[in-house]
Amino acid sequence: MKSDPLSAAFAALADPTRRAMLTRLCEGEATVNEIAAPFDLSLPAISKHLKVLEGAGLISRGRAAQFRPCRLEPGPLKDVADWVERYRRFWDESLDRLDSYLKEIQHKEKSDDA
Amino acid sequence: MKSDPLSAAFAALADPTRRAMLTRLCEGEATVNEIAAPFDLSLPAISKHLKVLEGAGLISRGRAAQFRPCRLEPGPLKDVADWVERYRRFWDESLDRLDSYLKEIQHKEKSDDA
Repeated sequence: MKSDPLSAAFAALADPTRRAMLTRLCEGEATVNEIAAPFDLSLPAISKHLKVLEGAGLISRGRAAQFRPCRLEPGPLKDVADWVERYRRFWDESLDRLDSYLKEIQHKEKSDDA
Repeated sequence: MKSDPLSAAFAALADPTRRAMLTRLCEGEATVNEIAAPFDLSLPAISKHLKVLEGAGLISRGRAAQFRPCRLEPGPLKDVADWVERYRRFWDESLDRLDSYLKEIQHKEKSDDA
């Protein structure tokens, strides 16, 4: 099933191993073996995860035939950030409401103590 | 397969219909019929999408037996925003590099014209 680029990015990020791989690539380019090292996974499983990340445009692969190092490509992450940012006012409002509620309780407790 | 909360949020967002449903809920609570209206989908298909959103904690359902209105729950969206925000420096750097490159070209063109 062909999905739109934003859906492909979200789907690729819906896995803790793939998110950990991206975190590793924050340090710079890495070969498949370097990326695989911290995981208790077979190389085919690692390769499959990298293909999903590459398909979503979240990583690119170098051309050096033997190593083909992977590199983080931040474009789709920016698209995800831009999309989710539209909802910021909702969680800000939730935190404001929680804050007001806590202040109200503290105020009430002080009044009760007095 | 039971997934971690962040993976469940990403997976739920990996679908344009579900993202459009969340956008609709920005305007306020809505019944299943109201949410379904703009989509050319069967009610069971709509219900399935809502269950995925509910499972990821992105919406909650009211208790009023007949209508059970859906409401946006911003918590998992904040978690997604917090996760992706860690990568901001990468896309900022990409844009900076593009900006420098464009300035360089403009500068070169001006020199050529002179």
